[in-house]
Amino acid sequence: MNPNVETFLGCDAAFEDAGIVLFGAPFDSTTSFRPGTRFASKAMRSESFGLETYSPYLDKDLTDCRIFDSGDLELCFGDANLALNHIESRAAEILEAGKLPVMIGGEHLVTLGAVRAAVKRYPDLHVVHFDAHADLRDDYLGARLSHATVLRRVWDLVGDGRIFQFGIRSGDREEFLWGREHVFTRRFDFKGLEETVAALQKKPVYFTLDLDVLDPSVFPGTGTPEAGGVSFLDLLGAAHKVSGLNIVGCDVNELCPAYDQSGASTAVACKVLRELLLLLSR
Amino acid sequence: MNPNVETFLGCDAAFEDAGIVLFGAPFDSTTSFRPGTRFASKAMRSESFGLETYSPYLDKDLTDCRIFDSGDLELCFGDANLALNHIESRAAEILEAGKLPVMIGGEHLVTLGAVRAAVKRYPDLHVVHFDAHADLRDDYLGARLSHATVLRRVWDLVGDGRIFQFGIRSGDREEFLWGREHVFTRRFDFKGLEETVAALQKKPVYFTLDLDVLDPSVFPGTGTPEAGGVSFLDLLGAAHKVSGLNIVGCDVNELCPAYDQSGASTAVACKVLRELLLLLSR
Amino acid sequence: MNPNVETFLGCDAAFEDAGIVLFGAPFDSTTSFRPGTRFASKAMRSESFGLETYSPYLDKDLTDCRIFDSGDLELCFGDANLALNHIESRAAEILEAGKLPVMIGGEHLVTLGAVRAAVKRYPDLHVVHFDAHADLRDDYLGARLSHATVLRRVWDLVGDGRIFQFGIRSGDREEFLWGREHVFTRRFDFKGLEETVAALQKKPVYFTLDLDVLDPSVFPGTGTPEAGGVSFLDLLGAAHKVSGLNIVGCDVNELCPAYDQSGASTAVACKVLRELLLLLSR
Amino acid sequence: MNPNVETFLGCDAAFEDAGIVLFGAPFDSTTSFRPGTRFASKAMRSESFGLETYSPYLDKDLTDCRIFDSGDLELCFGDANLALNHIESRAAEILEAGKLPVMIGGEHLVTLGAVRAAVKRYPDLHVVHFDAHADLRDDYLGARLSHATVLRRVWDLVGDGRIFQFGIRSGDREEFLWGREHVFTRRFDFKGLEETVAALQKKPVYFTLDLDVLDPSVFPGTGTPEAGGVSFLDLLGAAHKVSGLNIVGCDVNELCPAYDQSGASTAVACKVLRELLLLLSR
Amino acid sequence: MNPNVETFLGCDAAFEDAGIVLFGAPFDSTTSFRPGTRFASKAMRSESFGLETYSPYLDKDLTDCRIFDSGDLELCFGDANLALNHIESRAAEILEAGKLPVMIGGEHLVTLGAVRAAVKRYPDLHVVHFDAHADLRDDYLGARLSHATVLRRVWDLVGDGRIFQFGIRSGDREEFLWGREHVFTRRFDFKGLEETVAALQKKPVYFTLDLDVLDPSVFPGTGTPEAGGVSFLDLLGAAHKVSGLNIVGCDVNELCPAYDQSGASTAVACKVLRELLLLLSR
Amino acid sequence: MNPNVETFLGCDAAFEDAGIVLFGAPFDSTTSFRPGTRFASKAMRSESFGLETYSPYLDKDLTDCRIFDSGDLELCFGDANLALNHIESRAAEILEAGKLPVMIGGEHLVTLGAVRAAVKRYPDLHVVHFDAHADLRDDYLGARLSHATVLRRVWDLVGDGRIFQFGIRSGDREEFLWGREHVFTRRFDFKGLEETVAALQKKPVYFTLDLDVLDPSVFPGTGTPEAGGVSFLDLLGAAHKVSGLNIVGCDVNELCPAYDQSGASTAVACKVLRELLLLLSR
Repeated sequence: MNPNVETFLGCDAAFEDAGIVLFGAPFDSTTSFRPGTRFASKAMRSESFGLETYSPYLDKDLTDCRIFDSGDLELCFGDANLALNHIESRAAEILEAGKLPVMIGGEHLVTLGAVRAAVKRYPDLHVVHFDAHADLRDDYLGARLSHATVLRRVWDLVGDGRIFQFGIRSGDREEFLWGREHVFTRRFDFKGLEETVAALQKKPVYFTLDLDVLDPSVFPGTGTPEAGGVSFLDLLGAAHKVSGLNIVGCDVNELCPAYDQSGASTAVACKVLRELLLLLSR
Repeated sequence: MNPNVETFLGCDAAFEDAGIVLFGAPFDSTTSFRPGTRFASKAMRSESFGLETYSPYLDKDLTDCRIFDSGDLELCFGDANLALNHIESRAAEILEAGKLPVMIGGEHLVTLGAVRAAVKRYPDLHVVHFDAHADLRDDYLGARLSHATVLRRVWDLVGDGRIFQFGIRSGDREEFLWGREHVFTRRFDFKGLEETVAALQKKPVYFTLDLDVLDPSVFPGTGTPEAGGVSFLDLLGAAHKVSGLNIVGCDVNELCPAYDQSGASTAVACKVLRELLLLLSR
Repeated sequence: MNPNVETFLGCDAAFEDAGIVLFGAPFDSTTSFRPGTRFASKAMRSESFGLETYSPYLDKDLTDCRIFDSGDLELCFGDANLALNHIESRAAEILEAGKLPVMIGGEHLVTLGAVRAAVKRYPDLHVVHFDAHADLRDDYLGARLSHATVLRRVWDLVGDGRIFQFGIRSGDREEFLWGREHVFTRRFDFKGLEETVAALQKKPVYFTLDLDVLDPSVFPGTGTPEAGGVSFLDLLGAAHKVSGLNIVGCDVNELCPAYDQSGASTAVACKVLRELLLLLSR
Repeated sequence: MNPNVETFLGCDAAFEDAGIVLFGAPFDSTTSFRPGTRFASKAMRSESFGLETYSPYLDKDLTDCRIFDSGDLELCFGDANLALNHIESRAAEILEAGKLPVMIGGEHLVTLGAVRAAVKRYPDLHVVHFDAHADLRDDYLGARLSHATVLRRVWDLVGDGRIFQFGIRSGDREEFLWGREHVFTRRFDFKGLEETVAALQKKPVYFTLDLDVLDPSVFPGTGTPEAGGVSFLDLLGAAHKVSGLNIVGCDVNELCPAYDQSGASTAVACKVLRELLLLLSR
Repeated sequence: MNPNVETFLGCDAAFEDAGIVLFGAPFDSTTSFRPGTRFASKAMRSESFGLETYSPYLDKDLTDCRIFDSGDLELCFGDANLALNHIESRAAEILEAGKLPVMIGGEHLVTLGAVRAAVKRYPDLHVVHFDAHADLRDDYLGARLSHATVLRRVWDLVGDGRIFQFGIRSGDREEFLWGREHVFTRRFDFKGLEETVAALQKKPVYFTLDLDVLDPSVFPGTGTPEAGGVSFLDLLGAAHKVSGLNIVGCDVNELCPAYDQSGASTAVACKVLRELLLLLSR
Repeated sequence: MNPNVETFLGCDAAFEDAGIVLFGAPFDSTTSFRPGTRFASKAMRSESFGLETYSPYLDKDLTDCRIFDSGDLELCFGDANLALNHIESRAAEILEAGKLPVMIGGEHLVTLGAVRAAVKRYPDLHVVHFDAHADLRDDYLGARLSHATVLRRVWDLVGDGRIFQFGIRSGDREEFLWGREHVFTRRFDFKGLEETVAALQKKPVYFTLDLDVLDPSVFPGTGTPEAGGVSFLDLLGAAHKVSGLNIVGCDVNELCPAYDQSGASTAVACKVLRELLLLLSR
């Protein structure tokens, strides 16, 4: 009789054999509107078994990939610094083992922890960012570490010309103005993504996917649903393009399962993650 | 220490300074299927703070507009006449002050109160109407004042050739037949809206927006979700065109927050209202 | 004073006069993920009164059709064989009376009962199948009678070249491989449907519609929401084409009302059924 | 094949044979806080099949009683007068046939319709009233016909000393003051009920049961949950006592099924009604 | 980095060291009303971390006990026989290892699998049964294996005078009549439990706890909430008494987490299980 | 036309005239299980209008009291120190004006901010604490500022023998052991409260009421529902006793409205607050 090991669908390789290591970062303390993304990774593991391991989009199967799911970090609520340190350690450990870290958020701030680890290993790191929100504020209600400032904090680490945002449809005026000088921002959709991919060939790239880039009709289960987003197939196409890059770290975040009682948001998050894992698996 | 003033996002001008005056009409007594739109205005005020004041669609900001939110009317439930009188008074008061009334319903019947005020001031009033439902019945289960008869009652006031409906995808056969003789009805979408806008230049126009014109995937939080509706971007484009008219009164109605526990319906209603306010603000 | 007869909207003909006979098959015992489709037929009858009997898409009215609603079968939970026998009897009884059976599921396995009756009467039966899932497994967790094997069991009855699937976007690799040899499978959408309709002219056709072929944004209320589906208007168009065939049996299934608290999924299921009934009514 | 007759559990007698006639009054237009009681009767019929027909409390079985369920009235929303006339007619028709009318609300105002019929037939009518709320206002937000005024309107018909309230734990100060002069009010519980029953022997009595007399822990599914109510067993005991009276009309009201997603409120309402029917059945 | 092992709170002993072995039986195919108990064990593991391991009622701590959680069986839906065999094997395996099996249902039928294993090992098995429902039918809608017949099937194995039921408040008349001859049934509460415990000293006893013995106010999250149940403290006291027996097998069942969105039902189930585990741990 | 001022029911005095000042502290960043108490104060203001201003328990009316509602603080999420400073300032400001601060949480940590202000003004401060949880940990997952440590942090300020806890039914073993030396802890109920009240006459007392002291049947809408709590009437009685003390500060906390979709939890919180305000009003 064996203990009860729970992983994301088909991610049952041993750590040693794995090329990709999944982990959950259940943290949402800085969420300013509706919290609850802390439950995303648990829900995604549990609900992923409503999916098949096989993708008819890619004709690939998770059972042919070598992915290890290391479960969730136990993060301190109420202290963003502590949580980020914890995340950074885990990502660094995976990177040092020569594997690809794929993190399930949590709120978007968790990205900062993983990027800190990645930029130490790859000083030339670039960031591709899909999101509804620019997340470029310098502080939010007095906090410099916040879901609303995370890409600004990432910019502190990587500098001008290294961040490429797509799908952005919300922000205050100052964010858009500041952004024009320091990052590439494509509003509303993925136009220009092919050029970005062409330009970043061979660069180490961190890919952060805030699932609220999807339209709320597809993905209502998130803290701040923002109308006018992209479709599931748009996102799949864009992810396909991004997978042509040299991805050294990746995350999906901002699923808040409790806000979609139908489970459709969790299901779409699982499907996006399955496709990403298949795309990133070598 | 100040009392707790609650307004829709960014609508904090003083009455005297305002060009637009917002008010809520929380009434749903004639709703024949699933009631609850009475909670729309309160929910929209509360949830609007999940939005930004700045619109990347229009590159305009609510903080640059002068809008006063006068809160909700306290309407009598169970007596439609009393409620409509109350609404008419409020709309008339705003019109007399030379300001634009923007009303948040409530069920669609509330439009009749505001139109009564508008048509007294502008006898040449025309009406642009976005909706899933024709609302042209002469009576409904014995009631002449009903959400299902409201445009017919408006027709009683403005007469033939003054009502322009778009997006209509539900009604009984008689409504469509009667409509052919008396109003302009575009089924399913917004085709013909440009011509309507061209034809109505300089006319005083009341714009009534039943949010269930949106597809239920985008806007499930309404009493009678009707499949086959328009997308958020379709609606935004159409609203943009309508804003080229001489709008003298406006409402958005039929949000029923309790039927969408994800909050996405309330969020899209808030975003539509933000865009409308920015478009109508001079 | 009359007893309380409840039917689907506008389906109040006497059995003798009816050309179409509706019945519910509230069974979901083999559902492997989230059960609850047993409540679909009851919910659809109750919520159908939020719709009109008139369709502006077809300019037809249910009040002009002759449809009898015979209510729900009382099926045994936990014994799939018993339930299927019960369903087969009802379908056979309707077919023998020279009428068209239209069944509301329940999980997809219920289709097998109705197909058994149809294939006895029409040995040359063909099957048109809209679904997100291939349902072609030979067994599922040891069970040969399962929602996940239903089209394979139908194939046992009709054989190669008789099943035409559309919209399929989920299955394991083996199902897709097996399917290539034995059935026609169109992945993701309805391309090729016109050719199928042309090829099947004059053949007796059973049409089984798993509503999860719709995108979860439109239809989240189902046990296994699968992103990337078709739109409501796509489905309407496809149903229109199918109605050009010699349909001898039909079902709609897999609505699980409790998973969509907004009621929009039940509403879209009702609207699809209304259109189907209008299309199939002569 | 028979049409789909739906009744409350075990209430399938023919009208002619029945001693009790059940009907639903789905009306809630004057509800001032959270509407939705219009769905109570439908939900109770549907969910009653989760109960047994046999009561171990009374050792009686509904299958031994003769009860006819005449379904729901189709009431006009938004016009309280019209709806009350409709209810009065139905109750009068049942009374004239020498049967006992048992009505399922709806909001509490529906009681007025049934009492109007009863008082015409029994001018000496007395009223026993279980409720959380006194409902003794003379008007509410300008309306004299309201759920909040219903017992005052009943008093208009029956006069001083004829109304006996129990369980009351909410009202404004004026209601309690007025009540002291005109009705018997027992606050919080059922103390004094035995004396009331003794005093009313042989009088014709209308029994109106607002289910929110129950504690919200037992019955959260109501528009205005008011803490501090009675338990299910308290209510059962009290109903047992009341059944010793000469009951000539009865109703249960104020279940709002949508506010209790667990179904426990609907289930307790069904069980209360089952016990009442068994108690009132001769 | 370790794989993600999930257990019920504090149940992390190795199998070899454990005195108690927990397992989940996620099966609900015969549920006749509202299904969903299949999700109970998963929900209880996940939500148990909202509890403490320490009980102030017993002054004992789960961290001092040796309990192994072997996770959930993967049971076939739609075939009760197959599922029961599977459960019986697991229970037998635990009994053979000299450990106490504690099963989390699922619907109540799962008890039959575990009792089959227990009665083979302990032919003199007695059964203590807490429940709202008698579960003594001989068949239900044609099925002999059903949640509604489970204690009757247990009686087939253990015979007259071996089953002791408490808290029963629902059943059809025949069940109560049959029960009088063959089992001990205490209706409504736990009176007589002390005498039962005294009488069964030294006998091997299987204890099956249908959580719907609790009042729906405490435990609404179950398929068939039945008003008039016992309180949490009543149940705790009764469980304390039962733990004085020679318990050789035990289960808790009929939690349906989706029906109580507050999580309180899952939380109370977890707390009951914690207390049981502490009581049964030596 | 006036701006939209929103207050808790009947709390519309001017600041200057008020004896009691209400404010909301919408903070829940350290919540370790299920967040969302940040929405409590807003929900309570909004839902309080389902209550009457008059209490039949006390025969007092809020309209006779002088209470000012200063709305919600805008607190920084993710930084507990910043939030506590903000709360302390507000409480201090109210105390300096010679008024009684009554705070609506938020999670229980907010109490620390208000106690800091109170203990500065009243160095001899005592604390009466109603709760399900002891909250006496020294740190929680590395954080010293946490909902689970709040009474320990209060103890840091007031020292031994100053904290009196009632209703406690959850904690780890160490909390209970530590508690024995430093605070008075009454487990499960309010026994001993009269003695405590007698002993604290004339002492300045801060009263902190974690609403989860109530049984989850009464109050499921909280982050960590813990079975076995007190009833509403128990709590009312206890609050009545506490009001005989020299209360210098007070809070109610841990309502999480989203977890009780029926609204009953918010309603009971409002009723408790109404009674408290009436009791504390002079």
